[in-house]
Formats: sequence, structure tokens, C-alpha cells
Amino acid sequence: MTQAAVSGTRRSGASGERIFNFSAGPGVLPESVLQQCQEDVFNIMGSGIGILEHSHRGKVFDRLLEETFEAGRKVANLPDDYDMLFVQGGASSQCFMVPANYLPEGGTADYYRTGKWAKDSIKEAKLYGTAHVCFDGEPSKFSRLPASMDEVKHSASPAYVHFTSNNTIMGTQWHNEPTPPAGVELVCDASSDIFSKPIDVRKYALIYAGAQKNLGPAGTVMVIGKKDWLQREPVRPLPTMLKYKTHAENESRYNTPPTFGIYLIGQVFKWILAEGGVEEMQRRNEEKAGLIYGVIDQSSFYKGHAEKHCRSLMNITFTMPTPELEDKFIKEAEASGMDGLKGHRSVGGVRASIYNAMPRAGCEALASFMREFERTNG
Amino acid sequence: MTQAAVSGTRRSGASGERIFNFSAGPGVLPESVLQQCQEDVFNIMGSGIGILEHSHRGKVFDRLLEETFEAGRKVANLPDDYDMLFVQGGASSQCFMVPANYLPEGGTADYYRTGKWAKDSIKEAKLYGTAHVCFDGEPSKFSRLPASMDEVKHSASPAYVHFTSNNTIMGTQWHNEPTPPAGVELVCDASSDIFSKPIDVRKYALIYAGAQKNLGPAGTVMVIGKKDWLQREPVRPLPTMLKYKTHAENESRYNTPPTFGIYLIGQVFKWILAEGGVEEMQRRNEEKAGLIYGVIDQSSFYKGHAEKHCRSLMNITFTMPTPELEDKFIKEAEASGMDGLKGHRSVGGVRASIYNAMPRAGCEALASFMREFERTNG
Repeated sequence: MTQAAVSGTRRSGASGERIFNFSAGPGVLPESVLQQCQEDVFNIMGSGIGILEHSHRGKVFDRLLEETFEAGRKVANLPDDYDMLFVQGGASSQCFMVPANYLPEGGTADYYRTGKWAKDSIKEAKLYGTAHVCFDGEPSKFSRLPASMDEVKHSASPAYVHFTSNNTIMGTQWHNEPTPPAGVELVCDASSDIFSKPIDVRKYALIYAGAQKNLGPAGTVMVIGKKDWLQREPVRPLPTMLKYKTHAENESRYNTPPTFGIYLIGQVFKWILAEGGVEEMQRRNEEKAGLIYGVIDQSSFYKGHAEKHCRSLMNITFTMPTPELEDKFIKEAEASGMDGLKGHRSVGGVRASIYNAMPRAGCEALASFMREFERTNG
Repeated sequence: MTQAAVSGTRRSGASGERIFNFSAGPGVLPESVLQQCQEDVFNIMGSGIGILEHSHRGKVFDRLLEETFEAGRKVANLPDDYDMLFVQGGASSQCFMVPANYLPEGGTADYYRTGKWAKDSIKEAKLYGTAHVCFDGEPSKFSRLPASMDEVKHSASPAYVHFTSNNTIMGTQWHNEPTPPAGVELVCDASSDIFSKPIDVRKYALIYAGAQKNLGPAGTVMVIGKKDWLQREPVRPLPTMLKYKTHAENESRYNTPPTFGIYLIGQVFKWILAEGGVEEMQRRNEEKAGLIYGVIDQSSFYKGHAEKHCRSLMNITFTMPTPELEDKFIKEAEASGMDGLKGHRSVGGVRASIYNAMPRAGCEALASFMREFERTNG
């Protein structure tokens, strides 16, 4: 599985060699963060206790939580009237927590229907009120996002407008967020491109992101929101754990939080800052994606799934002339030390997920492999 | 913080020395599991990818999940008509998920009110129906559980009976589960003593346990239940993620599960089996607790909080003649390499949490420290 035929795909570390991991999520993490984690799991900050074993109310975790919030606020460039929370249940739980808290009985919220995650959000919203589809990507097989706001039809008075900033399965991404009607708040599922580029949080009431793509381990969700929105009493009676208010008022530790996830996300935040912040992430991501889109654009063998105006810098999806060739491509790539390239079962083809932590060398190796594969199979 | 005055409290590992961690949770984990984790975080099973970065639908995680279920079924001695799930949100989310799924509108469920967690469960149940308190520990400051079923008053026809098997804060523990009325199902919050001794799951419809005490990292909850109960349609419409059915029908991976938590719990399950199973855990836990209760019982200086018939093998709570002495005790213990001994803020005093992974040497060191402290301060 780890055989590396393409030069440059092997990297050694304390626990053996690593390969390039193009998994859509859980996805690749920075190696320096993993190496720090190897120490901290056994004994963190010289406390004689590992990170997994520290009380969430003890001094060591106090400091880790503070550091995570501090670094996170810098990465997100958070204004004072915004807060950051950590909750559980995956983005799948945010699908229902958003309408449960903010969509009143008999109310309507507008949803951009741009892929699987948007559809899941719409399904859950219907439990609480009306989910109005203001744009439907299905007629174009979710290969495109609206090219202009002319394609968008809002309802009369939505409680909020919801969109998915990056569609992992289809490989589409908003390069600028949609504009909601005047006075209406924007809610965003940013699970698969959070902090891959600068984000003007002032345009949003709420942003949520499952950690397992650009932030850390599966099982922790980061939420950024306006304080006034997060601390608001929900529009209906809800269990304590399902109110954003509960977590906002308790520094994300009303109950035992996912301490390891918060620690690791903090390490990733610090890594982003040390590497030059989200501006540098964007520069690298454009360069990395450019290497692979460059091959696709110069080829008649590879065909990109997403329309050019909205293709993703995080998940690059493409097909080849036959499914057999795609299978061969994926197998040979694996033998060359590149894993996780199989497209989602719902669309097939190839998907290269190149999150923040994917090194440029991984994209170079893939681009080079693609050119060679086309030469011998095209 | 790591200064070790009492001989035997220092143990070295790849990342430095460790101390004895008496934290109530997140709590101590087996060192061999942590050492394996140090490798697996960078590169697991020679895959060239760390455990945090593997797709939840890939071959490596397929195998880890299967191994976790297999070892877990052995540890729990699960009959074929029982299932094991992994969900998120802590036991705090189970407080509402149980009544949301099983307590019908207008229905009543019976609750043993034996401490903080029971009170939390009662509070959430009231959102859905009537929570009848069949036993109230508050008059005795939660220092006791019912000594016989004569103290218990059930409602006419409860949907289920709920109890907390071990009360972390108070240090009380059921040594045999309560008997529900004929034909009524038993639901248990076993967060703080799961697999510390054999458990006859046939007596239960549902058992849940937050992982961070005896199983693994905070953020993952293990649920064991009758298949027919887990797969049942909830008594009211619920979001997809809040139905046990969703997780039961999808091998606990309807969405991206907490992959690292499941992996680590699997390692702890294997450790339990390798050490001799839950019978051996019970033998060790009785011996370990005996060392500390032995000091308390022979002393007029230390006073145990829990009544003897229901004192916990997991959390040993006691007080001293003055709060000043308790502070001194905790500080000096810390300086001797014993951390996490401060009692919960609601009861004060000292609490020694000695979960499965606490080595006997830790209890010996504490007992010896207690005798010495009494000699010089008593």
C-alpha cells in the first residue's frame, strides 16, 4: 500500500514513512502537528499526564482552551462581537441545530441546494418550518453554483439564508459568498474549505465547520457566530445541549467537551499562523490546485466535473474516458504512494482532496502522475 | 508539578515521566494504549497515514471499526440480540435522547435521583413528558442509594426506569442494578463505571457511557442496547442524528463518526481483554479501592462521604477535619506526583478517581501518603 514509485512521495518520521493522502475527510493533517501530538498524548506541557487524560476543568486544559480560542480568533480575524464555539455531532447535527434554534414555527428559511450537504440541511429544516430552495443545482447535476444573483429566487421574508461554501463531492466552491436580501442573515456550512482562504465573518451570522477536513479530528465542530445570534434564546423549547446559547455561555464546556479535538484544532490554528495565516493558505491552495487543474485544462483525456467559474480549490473532481481507466488510475496512483483518490460513490471518477495540510509536493506528484498516465493510456 | 517525593510515583516513557492521575474525567488511560497511539497518530497499520487522517469509509477504518465492535462485544459479553453504537455529544446528550426517543407525549418515566447526572436527566426528560422520581437521594445529601427496594416508589406504568450506576461526584455506586417493575425496561447511565466489573446486559434495554472515564477520549459515547429497542422508530418526529435507529442501521457511521475515539476505545477494549477481562478488572478495582477505604476505615481523621453499602470502587470521596487541611493534603499530594485529587466544587473534600487504568501502585502511593499525612497532621 505504501510502495512509492513516484519520486518524492515518501517522507519519513518517527513512526515510519508517510504517503500522500488525498482523502476527502477525515483528511491530511500537518506533520509537525502530528509529531507534537505524539509527545502530548503521553505527557503534555511536562504535566506528567497526556492530553487525553486531563480534566476539562484543570489548569492544563484551561490554558489549551485559551490558546485555541486566541489562535482561532487570529486565524478567523474575529471582531469583538463574534464568538467561537466548539460543539459535537458533526456538521450533520448543525443541519438540524440551525433551524431548531432560529427557524420559527411557520417560518421560512432559504437554502442553496448545491449538493449532498445542502440537501441534508434542507431535509432537517423541514422538521421545523419551510425550507425554500432559492437555487437548485440538481438540473446541472450539481456541477455549478449560480454565476450571478439573477439565478437566485428568495422567499418573501426568510429567517436566514443558508449555503454550503464548498461541495466536497461535486468539487464546487463559492469564491465569494452569496448576497442575502437586505436585513437577512447568512448561515454557512464551511466544513470543507474553512480557513483555506480569508473570510469576512462580518457578512455572516453563523458559520459552522466539521473539523475533519481543514481543522483537526472528526467529532468536533467549530462554530463562529455573532454573539447576539449565539446567545439568543432559541425560537422553541430545546434540550440544553442543543441550544447554541448553552455553549456560548459556558466557553464550550457546559459538559465535558471533546478536549482532544479542541487541543488538536488549536495546534492546527497555530500552524496556520506560523505558516503565514489564511492569506498564505490561499496563495498555496491556488498554486496547488493550479498544478492539477493545469493538467486537466491541457488534456482531452481528463474532464473536470465542476464548471470553471466555481471549481473548488479543495476537492478536484474529474473523469476519464471509461470507468475501467479510472479504476486503473486509482490503483496505480495508490501503488505510487497516493491514497484516497476514488471519487464519491454518487458521482464516480477521481477526486483529489488537497486541504491546507496537503504539501505542494503531493500536488506536484499527482500532476506528474496524471501526465504520465495520460501519455501511456490516452 | 511532577516532583515525586513518594517513591514509586515516577514512571518513564518515550515522552518523559508520568505521574498518578486521579482525575474524575477525562481520566487516566493505560500507558500501553497511549504508546500504541503515539505510533498510530503518525502512521497506522503501515498505511502511511495516521489514524486521525483516515477516511471513515476506507479499508483501514473498516478494520478498526470491526475490531472495536468485536472486542467490545467480548468485553460486554453481548448477546446476539444486543448491539453496540458509538455516538457523540457526551452523556449530557443522552439525557435528552433517551426521553426524546422513548418517552411518549403524556407518558411517564421513572428516575432514581441520586446525584448531578440523574438531576440533569430528569430536567431534560421533563421537556418530553413526566419524570417521576422513584427515589430521591437529596435528603441524605446524595450520600446513599436505596438499601432495599422498599425505599423505591414507582409510578403506575413507566415507559422505562432510569438510573446512574455510579455517581462520580458523591462517590456512590450500585453494586447490583435496581429491579424495575415487571415488564418495564431499565436504562442506565454507566459513564463512570462501565466495564469496571461484569455487567449482565440482559437486565437492560439501554446502557450509555461517555468514554472519558473508563473507555477513551471525551467526545465519544458508547451505547449498548437491545436491537429491537435501538432500531425502534422514535415516539415523536426527530432529526435524523437524534434517532438511535439512524446509528443502529448505519454501523455508527451514518455521518463521519468520531473515528479517533472509536479507534482508541477499541484499543482499551483489547487492553481489558488482554489483562483478563472485566472479571479481572473487578478483582483489581476491589483491591485498589480496598487500599484507600482501608485507610479511611481505620482513621478518625478521614471521613468517607458515601455510606458503606453503596460506596464506589471508582471514585473515593472523603473529607478531613478542616478545609485548610484538605487544601494542604491536595497540594502536598500534587507535589508528590498525585494529581486531580480535589473534590467536586459542589461537595468539596478529596476525591480519588481510580478507574480501570489506574495502576495498583497509584493506590498504594495514595494510601501510604494518606497514612503519613494523618500521622503528621492528625
